[in-house]
Formats: sequence, C-alpha cells, structure tokens
Amino acid sequence: MIKIPGFLGSAVSSGVKKKGKKDLALIYSEVPAKAAGVFTTNIVKAPPVILGMDRIKSGFCQAVLVNSGVANAFTGKLGLKDSIVSSKDVADQLGIAESLVIPSSTGVIGGRLPLDKMKKAMPKLVKELREDGFLDFADGIKTTDAFPKYAVKQISIGKKKGTIAVIGKGAGMIAPNMATMLAYILTDFNVEKRALSKVLRNTVKDSFNKIIVDGDTSTNDTVLILANGKLGNSTIKESGAEYKKFEKTVLEVATEVAEMIVQDGEGATKVAKIIVKGARTEKDADKIARTLGTSLLVKTAFFGEDPNWGRIVAAAGRAGVNFNPNKIDLFFDDHKVLSNSKKVMDEKKAQSVLKKPKFEVTLNIKTGKSSSFVIASDITFEYVKINSHYRT
Amino acid sequence: MIKIPGFLGSAVSSGVKKKGKKDLALIYSEVPAKAAGVFTTNIVKAPPVILGMDRIKSGFCQAVLVNSGVANAFTGKLGLKDSIVSSKDVADQLGIAESLVIPSSTGVIGGRLPLDKMKKAMPKLVKELREDGFLDFADGIKTTDAFPKYAVKQISIGKKKGTIAVIGKGAGMIAPNMATMLAYILTDFNVEKRALSKVLRNTVKDSFNKIIVDGDTSTNDTVLILANGKLGNSTIKESGAEYKKFEKTVLEVATEVAEMIVQDGEGATKVAKIIVKGARTEKDADKIARTLGTSLLVKTAFFGEDPNWGRIVAAAGRAGVNFNPNKIDLFFDDHKVLSNSKKVMDEKKAQSVLKKPKFEVTLNIKTGKSSSFVIASDITFEYVKINSHYRT
Repeated sequence: MIKIPGFLGSAVSSGVKKKGKKDLALIYSEVPAKAAGVFTTNIVKAPPVILGMDRIKSGFCQAVLVNSGVANAFTGKLGLKDSIVSSKDVADQLGIAESLVIPSSTGVIGGRLPLDKMKKAMPKLVKELREDGFLDFADGIKTTDAFPKYAVKQISIGKKKGTIAVIGKGAGMIAPNMATMLAYILTDFNVEKRALSKVLRNTVKDSFNKIIVDGDTSTNDTVLILANGKLGNSTIKESGAEYKKFEKTVLEVATEVAEMIVQDGEGATKVAKIIVKGARTEKDADKIARTLGTSLLVKTAFFGEDPNWGRIVAAAGRAGVNFNPNKIDLFFDDHKVLSNSKKVMDEKKAQSVLKKPKFEVTLNIKTGKSSSFVIASDITFEYVKINSHYRT
Repeated sequence: MIKIPGFLGSAVSSGVKKKGKKDLALIYSEVPAKAAGVFTTNIVKAPPVILGMDRIKSGFCQAVLVNSGVANAFTGKLGLKDSIVSSKDVADQLGIAESLVIPSSTGVIGGRLPLDKMKKAMPKLVKELREDGFLDFADGIKTTDAFPKYAVKQISIGKKKGTIAVIGKGAGMIAPNMATMLAYILTDFNVEKRALSKVLRNTVKDSFNKIIVDGDTSTNDTVLILANGKLGNSTIKESGAEYKKFEKTVLEVATEVAEMIVQDGEGATKVAKIIVKGARTEKDADKIARTLGTSLLVKTAFFGEDPNWGRIVAAAGRAGVNFNPNKIDLFFDDHKVLSNSKKVMDEKKAQSVLKKPKFEVTLNIKTGKSSSFVIASDITFEYVKINSHYRT
C-alpha cells in the first residue's frame, strides 16, 4: 500500500475508456508542494506539456490531473485551451489556484480532450481522494500497460522517517495510439527548491532516461517531483550527506519503476541491462550502450535467446565511437564471451544467461575509465502485432 | 541477360553452403580496370574490407572474388592472412598480380574462411568465366537474399554506345548470421580515375546510402566501380555533359538495385520512399528522413497499412531538427494528410495508398528549400522470425 503523508490520490472512469475502466486520475497535496519537472525533448510537444513547462516555473504544484485515452497531442491552440479549461475545472473543485495544477495526457495523438466527460467526472474524482488512493491513481493512468507501476521506500534523514514514492506508466516510448511515459515522484520530505530540481535531473538521467523499448520519444513524456514538507524535517539542501541519502533513495525508487516500464515494454519478454565500460567519456559509453539497446538485430537476438555476440560487436562498431576492435571484452552476466576479442564463450552457458527474463550484457572497450548503461527490452512478434494493428 | 564487354563472370559451389548452392563468385576484367571503392563506416571492419581499402588505392582492379556463407569478420590478423591467401590463389589461376584482386566476404561473423574448399573450387571458378556469367555471379553472392539483384542500361556518349551494369546483394544491413550489402558497378566506358571516384561517391550517396532495412551497418559493406575502357570512347573527365550523362545513368542503375535490396529486406512487404522537403539544409532533411525510416513505430505502421500520421509527426519531432510543428504538410503519395498541421486526410484514400507495395511519404517542414529522402522497408512478423531464430 502506498501512503505518502499529506498526499491524496484517486481515479475514476469518465467514459473515454471502454468497460468502465478508470481514465481520469488525480494527485492532490494538502499544501502547495515544492515541485520540479522534466518534459519530453521532442519538439512536437503536446499542449499539456507546454502548459506544465510554464506552470512548473513557479516551483510549486498542488495537484496533478492525468487523463488516459487521449494524448491531446498535435491539437494546437485549441488543445492548449482544453488543457487550461480542464485544469481550471479541477482547481475549482479543489478550491485551489489553477496555476497550481499540472495536467498530463496520454493516449491517441490528434484527438481533442473530452472536456464534457471530464467535467462531469470531476466531482467524483475529487470526492474519492484518499490517502490510500494511489493504487487507483496508478491504474487510472495506464494505457497499453499490462500492470500498474509504483514503488515506495521509507528512509530516516536525521531523526525523521519520511516516504518517497514513484508512480509511473509506460509500455512503449510511444505506443501506437496509446502513448507516453509518465512518472510522479512524491515525498513528504521538506526539500529546498534547487535541491529538488537537482535530484530530479540526476534521477531522471540515471533511471527513466536509461530505458529503451523502441527508441521513440513521446510528445507527452513528463516526470514530476513533488515535496510537500509534511514531515517537518529540517530542509534538505543542495549538498551534504542528507542530500546524498535523499537523492540515492529517490534514484533507487525511480529505477524500480523504470525497470517495470521495460518489463512491461510492448511485447517484451526480456529486461537487459547493457553496460559499456572502459570508454574515454561517459558520453562515448552512453552512445554505444544506446546503439546496442536500440539495435533491432541485438533486440531480436535477445528475443531468440541467441548468444549472437557478432551482432553486439557490429552494432558497437557503428556507434560513432573510436575503439580498438581487437581488444574488447564481452560478458553475458558474469560469463565471459570475448576476451581481447577472442571468443571464449561456452555456448550452453551463454544461452542459459539469455534464457533468464533479466540479465546483464557488459562490453569493455578498454580505451578509458568511463562507463554508462541502458535498460532495454527485446523486440518480439507481440511487439509487431501490437504496433502494426495487423489487418488480415 | 547482362553482358558488359571485356568483363567475365562466374560462380560455383565450394561446399560451404548446403545443397550445392553457389557460394564462390568471380568478376574478371580482360584488362586491369580503373576502379574506385567505398567501404563500411563501421569501425569493426572485416579483413576483406581492410585489404580492399588498401588495394583500391592503386586505382586499378582486375578481379573481384566474393565468397558467401562466411563473412571473415572479427577474425583479426589470421582473417586478414586468409583474405590475402585466397585472393593470391585466384590471382595465380588467372595469371594476374594478386594486388589486382579485391575480395569480398558475406555471411557468418566470427568464422574463418574455408581456404581449402575455396582453393579446390578455384580452377572450376576460373574455367567457367563467361561473358554471360553474371546471373551466376549474382546468384553466388546471395545470403538471405530471396532473389538475385542486378540492373543494366546502355547509353550513348558521343558516338559510342556503352554498358553500365550493377550487381548487388543484401537483405538486411546486417542479417543475423548472413550479412552485408555488396554491389559491383561494371562498365566498358573509358573513364578518368578521378571522375570514377566522383561518380561512385555521388552515386552511393543517393542510392545505397539511402536505403534502410533495419538501421544496422555491416562490418563488410562494399561498393566497387570498375571501368575497363573496352569501349574505346574518349576518356570521360570529371565534368561536362558527358560526365553528367554517365553519372546520371550510373545513379539510375544503382537506384534500381538499391530498391531491390529494400524490396527484399528481411521480411519486408513495403518499399516506402520517405521524402523530407522544406528543410534549412540537406543534412537536416536527411536527419528527419532517417529518423522516420528507422522508427519502429513508423515501420510497423507501414506493415499494418495504418495511416498513422501521429507516429510520423512524433518521430520527426525527435530527429533533432528545429521546425514549427504547427506548419507542416504531409502526403501519402499525392493524397494530402496534413495541411499546416491540420488533418485533412481521407482515411480510406490514405489507407489505399498504404495498401500498395510501394508508396511515397512526403513531409514538408517549410523552414527552407533543402530536401532529402530515404527508401525504407517495413518491419514485420517475418523480420522478427528471421532475426530471432525463434526457438520453441
């Protein structure tokens, strides 16, 4: 059960999704929470993202309104007005300033928000707000997600024990019609504004920005962090041991949810952590890791549980990073596959690693001391099925 | 029937491929031909590529030896020695200098060349050289290719009528175990060395470098042009009307073969020409076109014959090129889908375009006057099947 002191959650069905499934969800903080956000880098930004980027500048947020089923993306000025209207509707119901509401939308690109349905559902949405309403919230923001995604951890900083929770959704970077990665980090710790932005930046870099399902980037991606200070701890500042402990825990909880998104990647059967070591710079390591994590040939080999090291080496070679191809080491978990580019793999052992639902691939290019990683899914028949809407 | 005066071709079975399929192929020019080559940009270069890059520096080539089934990639110094030995074997049989032989290999990464089998097969390979042996050659260089790929055209430059032929192979940029794009451009025109390099560079840029099956780049990709001058025309120089006519025709013939490679892309059912117009620079247009041509969501939508313009717009937005997302036009063939980012698509008409095996997608971002394109396949169940070696 996820409870974060001072936060309430809820979700209801507004009638956009079929069969009475929940499609409108709300986070409410009893007091305006200090807040920071990161948003999609896609230049085609959906109106709720444009509005959220503007509103987060105040550094405060008291409510997050999420609708699933319609992305309100590529809807222009009318779409922006729709986001403003729906967040005003919920602000009125909550009795707070509309500028403290940040909206997110996820679903079909090109469709307008169902304002009437949303407005009708809002009194119930607000009435159902509960301390233990975050499972409903996690359910209400799903689109093609097979399961709701959340993680929570309590830690003591000084003498106060606080809570850090992450609730997210996503099953493809962009799903066919159902889209977007969303994640909300909620905590009752009291955190300085600049510290909060820094935690968010660092956390997203090493969690949500490391996951690859299909390599596409949504028009609606949003990650928010809200700290309501309800715990009454002495403010966590931008550095020091308390900051480090806080950031470390936020990253841990966010990583749990990020891995869930890969595990639930459209059609995915594998979660592979691809680690690149021995690069001159972290950027170089990242380039190779991302090339491997998006290579169709690598991802289909994972699906086939095929220890096809040739594809890994060939994909690394086209990443645009210089290294000596005669000196690399490659591991599947701790089983050595290549030693100074010589094959030392035991076929059966290598295969038994790839048969697991979760494994690590480690490539050492031995040109420096930097490393990076991505967490990637495989590409399967089911992926093609989900995304082709195959019409026979 | 492909005949190019002064060139002979052949192919035989050396026993590497099963069922007596041809796996060793040879091009021979009666005289040393002026030659130029372009090779894979992958830093993991197979030994035959390393050897070819060195030998082409002389500007001459008299024989091309291709083996299919084993890529001789990632085989280090021993692999380089193998390429040298096998090209010396064929040079001895032909009675020419070994430096005039350029080898290509395509097939499994990591395996050594079957030198003994190749040596045994060489007398027959040389004996079978014929003016009409290029269908055999096209067949002998296949790996996962479903059909042999070649195109030929005759043109008159001045009073002389010459021949330009292109023979190629490839079905995935890198296929799982069977790899590589290879293409050989043969002509009896007499062409100056620098002009030949320029023609090759320009041609590859607008033909073979525009095709996208899976976005991977092989360790063995090679395109060679050989001009043996047998026609006796006055030398084609680096500029002027004759040069232009020659280059135009080479590009036409190469484009035919490049499109065949996409058509035969692993599991492909569609050949989509994706054109991006109205960019500030050709590089910007190219970036967007490549992002669309490699986007899994765009490629699976093509497979599903789904006029999912949202995915196209979203993929364009993450290409790293600035444009106004409220001002774009989009066409499927000549059917307008978006006009200044407003949907004007007729669902049925749009779908009827995507039902065709070959169609154009044109995106106008209206920020400048430059354009570019790619030719891309779709991603299908069959693609996943071929590349996952699905083990049930």
